[in-house]
Amino acid sequence: MKTQRYLPFLLTLTCAVVVAAQEPAPTPKLNLMPVPASIEFHQERLRIDSNFKVATRGHSDARLQAGIFRFMKRLEGRTVLTMAPGFAPDDQMTHLIIHAQGPGKSIPSVSEDESYHIDITNRQALLSAPTVIGVLRGLETLLQLLDADRTGYFFPGVQIDDKPRFPWRGLMIDVARHFQTMEVLKRNLDAMAAVKLNVFHWHLTEDQGFRVESKKFPKLHQLGSDGNFFTQEQVKEIIAYARDRGIRVVPEFDIPGHSTSWLVGHPELGSAPGPYTIERRPGIFEPALDPTREEVYKFLDTFLSEMAGLFPDDYLHIGGDENEGKQWDRNPAIQAFMKQKGIKDNHALQAYFNTRLLKILQKNGKKMIGWDEILQPELPKDIVIHSWRGTAALAEAAKKGYYGILSNGYYIDLIHPASSHYAPDPVPANTTLTPEEAKRVLGGEATMWAEWVTPETIDSRIWPRTAAIAERLWSPREVTDVDDMYRRLGVISIQLEELGLTHKKNREMMMRRLVRNDDIGPLRTLVSVIEPVKEYRRYQMRPQTMLSPLTGVIDAATPDAEGARKFSWMVKEFLGDGPRYQLYQSELSQMLSEWQTAGASLGPLVDRSPAIREIKPLAQNLSQLGDIGLEAISYLKLGMPPPRDWRETTMVKVDEAAKPYGALEFVVVSGVKQLVLAAAEIKP
Amino acid sequence: MKTQRYLPFLLTLTCAVVVAAQEPAPTPKLNLMPVPASIEFHQERLRIDSNFKVATRGHSDARLQAGIFRFMKRLEGRTVLTMAPGFAPDDQMTHLIIHAQGPGKSIPSVSEDESYHIDITNRQALLSAPTVIGVLRGLETLLQLLDADRTGYFFPGVQIDDKPRFPWRGLMIDVARHFQTMEVLKRNLDAMAAVKLNVFHWHLTEDQGFRVESKKFPKLHQLGSDGNFFTQEQVKEIIAYARDRGIRVVPEFDIPGHSTSWLVGHPELGSAPGPYTIERRPGIFEPALDPTREEVYKFLDTFLSEMAGLFPDDYLHIGGDENEGKQWDRNPAIQAFMKQKGIKDNHALQAYFNTRLLKILQKNGKKMIGWDEILQPELPKDIVIHSWRGTAALAEAAKKGYYGILSNGYYIDLIHPASSHYAPDPVPANTTLTPEEAKRVLGGEATMWAEWVTPETIDSRIWPRTAAIAERLWSPREVTDVDDMYRRLGVISIQLEELGLTHKKNREMMMRRLVRNDDIGPLRTLVSVIEPVKEYRRYQMRPQTMLSPLTGVIDAATPDAEGARKFSWMVKEFLGDGPRYQLYQSELSQMLSEWQTAGASLGPLVDRSPAIREIKPLAQNLSQLGDIGLEAISYLKLGMPPPRDWRETTMVKVDEAAKPYGALEFVVVSGVKQLVLAAAEIKP
Repeated sequence: MKTQRYLPFLLTLTCAVVVAAQEPAPTPKLNLMPVPASIEFHQERLRIDSNFKVATRGHSDARLQAGIFRFMKRLEGRTVLTMAPGFAPDDQMTHLIIHAQGPGKSIPSVSEDESYHIDITNRQALLSAPTVIGVLRGLETLLQLLDADRTGYFFPGVQIDDKPRFPWRGLMIDVARHFQTMEVLKRNLDAMAAVKLNVFHWHLTEDQGFRVESKKFPKLHQLGSDGNFFTQEQVKEIIAYARDRGIRVVPEFDIPGHSTSWLVGHPELGSAPGPYTIERRPGIFEPALDPTREEVYKFLDTFLSEMAGLFPDDYLHIGGDENEGKQWDRNPAIQAFMKQKGIKDNHALQAYFNTRLLKILQKNGKKMIGWDEILQPELPKDIVIHSWRGTAALAEAAKKGYYGILSNGYYIDLIHPASSHYAPDPVPANTTLTPEEAKRVLGGEATMWAEWVTPETIDSRIWPRTAAIAERLWSPREVTDVDDMYRRLGVISIQLEELGLTHKKNREMMMRRLVRNDDIGPLRTLVSVIEPVKEYRRYQMRPQTMLSPLTGVIDAATPDAEGARKFSWMVKEFLGDGPRYQLYQSELSQMLSEWQTAGASLGPLVDRSPAIREIKPLAQNLSQLGDIGLEAISYLKLGMPPPRDWRETTMVKVDEAAKPYGALEFVVVSGVKQLVLAAAEIKP
Repeated sequence: MKTQRYLPFLLTLTCAVVVAAQEPAPTPKLNLMPVPASIEFHQERLRIDSNFKVATRGHSDARLQAGIFRFMKRLEGRTVLTMAPGFAPDDQMTHLIIHAQGPGKSIPSVSEDESYHIDITNRQALLSAPTVIGVLRGLETLLQLLDADRTGYFFPGVQIDDKPRFPWRGLMIDVARHFQTMEVLKRNLDAMAAVKLNVFHWHLTEDQGFRVESKKFPKLHQLGSDGNFFTQEQVKEIIAYARDRGIRVVPEFDIPGHSTSWLVGHPELGSAPGPYTIERRPGIFEPALDPTREEVYKFLDTFLSEMAGLFPDDYLHIGGDENEGKQWDRNPAIQAFMKQKGIKDNHALQAYFNTRLLKILQKNGKKMIGWDEILQPELPKDIVIHSWRGTAALAEAAKKGYYGILSNGYYIDLIHPASSHYAPDPVPANTTLTPEEAKRVLGGEATMWAEWVTPETIDSRIWPRTAAIAERLWSPREVTDVDDMYRRLGVISIQLEELGLTHKKNREMMMRRLVRNDDIGPLRTLVSVIEPVKEYRRYQMRPQTMLSPLTGVIDAATPDAEGARKFSWMVKEFLGDGPRYQLYQSELSQMLSEWQTAGASLGPLVDRSPAIREIKPLAQNLSQLGDIGLEAISYLKLGMPPPRDWRETTMVKVDEAAKPYGALEFVVVSGVKQLVLAAAEIKP
């Protein structure tokens, strides 16, 4: 579900200001993310050295053993200790006892018990869980508990009782607008498991690409994908990989709209004669399946039955969003059909289409999930509404008896900060739902729409921010301390790299390519305080197609620009320390001087590197912001009021310097303004 | 072929001092690597913008088109320009005309014509070649020619006539000691193509692992690989991927020694009863196939025929190295066989074995290649001797009429600098071979033995140094300017990153994991001036097994440590500027101060990070070397002689600080000593 039409809704919600929880958050000063449901500390420490041994108790199977093997490899990787392979006896000499009471469901399910218990003493750690998936969740917690002191590595003494708040905690990856490789999916599944997400929603078809092999209708992938699709063998490999990590795989086939790529090979399914070509632009397009012809349902019956056999999950996502019905309006046969059947509008026609789809899914033992638009009274109560509209729409559905999941507020493609995704709650504290109704809100999904991501950049658009969403969906509602979230996010972000994620390391690589040199210092300084413009402004300001290179400065820049976050924090401390203004004064001045220098050095760098030419004005403005910040600080230091019109002329300069170029904008402007305003308030 | 037994040989050759060529090298001041056979410049420039268009002329096929597609994607990626997909008409308006005269051989071959011609004017570039592979080589040259000025990107005006000096230019990757993934192989094949290497020698079996699926004898890979092997489908995928890039794939099945992993599933092939387990240590081991039993040949006949069908190349590598025959000596049946057949020693027994192997290969239409040890008079003249012994052994074989390739001097696992690999020439200037004999020296191969590399680190052990070897094997013998090689290597190294190589970007990622923090500054400073110990000393100083984590500081450190190279160069300039000592004085002092600071900051970092504990003495010594260097510089600056015994006591201190710890050693010691000696020579 893309939201270009509904921008105001989203804007309101994703820009919601995050307020600190009123009661003190129970977040412990540990690096756990998501924060467990219950945790108690004590002073003991279980030491870890190369003699570290693991035993299993109770149920054991291949999935459990593979999970423990991966755990040990990561533990070894971080500690650089060689530990003995295999399992030790279940006795008092063994450091970690893992007790799975049973295998859990053979196919990961929304009703899986993911709870686990950890008890760590000086002598031994016990991880127990009703299911293997519970154990897998606990192993991730253990890896996050790993700590060190002068003596060496250890697990701190804790008692943890943990289970998720919501049973549906997903990440949707759109592999259609830009294709993503097997490696991208695998490393992201590993990362999902690391933060206890449990649904990989695989957005497989779009106007811009049909990405799964169909043996029944091979023209779908052959003509609709530029050769970039997943074979059925690869699909099975991903499903097995996900299952091994306790993750469900929910495929999405987005119909009746968003279907241009289907029609390239099968124009006969369309509501207009065609021919069709793969769409290369972003946006909402007219092509839609024809819901009035029996051959279309026959086709869908065969195709969806094939896919239902391939994907074992209980649910199948049918999309259903953003069909504007323009092709339907113009097709006389469709209009005649509607008249004959008494179908009053396009919404009703789509409802008719969905009812037919539902029968196909039911025949194949699948439950339907689709975007908000599919909600209609005739549908049975086991469908799931996937809401991009928000908690109100979700609550309304729940009151009617429908299940739902939230994605409004979790659109990670929009380049908002982690804090903005951390705030929205599928069942907020002020909910009007009864406890029973609230249970129908199953959870939520982060959505990685893929207009502007390639395998090289996608990790930096998903991580680490999605860990904040994972916490929202797993941890108690009361866990809302934004500062502590960011602190832990920094730690988790580095841990995610051990799984092969490239969200940190590709940034400098891309800068080296842009300037064809190792000396990227000044560019790095600039990129640390700018971000791509938010929402859908990128395309408006810097039009590209799905075939364009995504290798520009905008692609190296990331949400939550680190230098900017550091700057804001230092400004807050510095101003909070008034009228002395000593706290972080020298660090702040140093940072502002760096901006001056970097801005100046970028000039010659831009001259040698046409690929970064678009940032030339940003370089000048970086120097300007540095100048202004230092000027303000010097007034504050001296306690000397600036000249009369200084505030006004300076704020004009800041606004001028704040303009975006190359669809990149400074995220340090409000900090600089705060400095200016504080200086302007100095009394003579 | 591993060389532990023969260390002195290798040591002599790989440590050979690189002397600048006596005649001025014809290397142009461009970034081409390898340097073309012939290049002429003129002042024209072919401008590149988003209208850039390509046309083909003459032969066209899928491989050519895919190669041009990849070329365009890389061109777009670097320039951040969106160019129109597809081909333009062959007319004067089209910027690049590509003219392949024919397809070349359907399977890449040692007799392939790889030559190409490039002619670039203001208006148009023409790339022509007799074969598609020639075009692919030329496209890589074009990408290296890409340059920029204030106006934008351009190809400089040149005329290039290029062809390789040697037809066999390989990279061997050992995927047996440590398994490597498909992605590792693919990105390395891309990198090979980028520097015009044309043979991927796939070392598939070892004591430590059997890495290819056998449908005939599935116990080989099932029991010999810990589940880490390439399926036959994957092998085909790699062969196709390599062929698309004009690269041959030569598989190696190393027998009769180095075969422990074979015997885990098939102990009946061994020369001792077994049972066998996969070897986890590095080194040379006793297990060897029994060359006296017919069932062994029957097995090999079936197995090698299966493999001969899987791998289309003309050659099959049978290893043959380092079989010490200890199992043979102790086996009475083998001894009786030798007596009966009049086989006088183990070498003769292995010759008997090879003669039998040869028949199997011949039956399957394959030519044999093996390490030095296989050379014996009975073998036909179409076999290839793969020499780890050196150019003398190679020349001897060539005089006897045998083909050969060189790997001595190209052992990139030994952590020597690129300069040491750049020097050895398969047919050196002082060769005693006649031109006809010299033609039998087909080229050489860089060998990536995999005791201490994982998918995370292997790229940093192969690249960028292997580009220097690629140049030795492609470019004219006279191209030997080491400084210019390093200059170009720096540029190429960044370009290689666009192919997904991790040799640069994984370094800091590994440091972040070690210190669990983004603030890696002081560790980075240390790692920039230290290197892993050379040759086979790593295992002696820091024993690990094939199952150990390779995530330590030693694994983040790389050959040709960049800070050290910069330091050496600055010391040379500084001392060369005596008695003024102004050139680079402040940069040098700044670098030495950084060592002091970093050394001091590392203390607390080590206390928080047990994984880097082994570098604690190195941190202290880094400070010490900084102190000493600054002291020497201050004497030199002042022209003041140091106290009498200063030189002696200081040199003792330097030697003390130079000691390796954690199998890591400073590579700035000789520079610091030069400073000390220069200061000690100041006359009062």
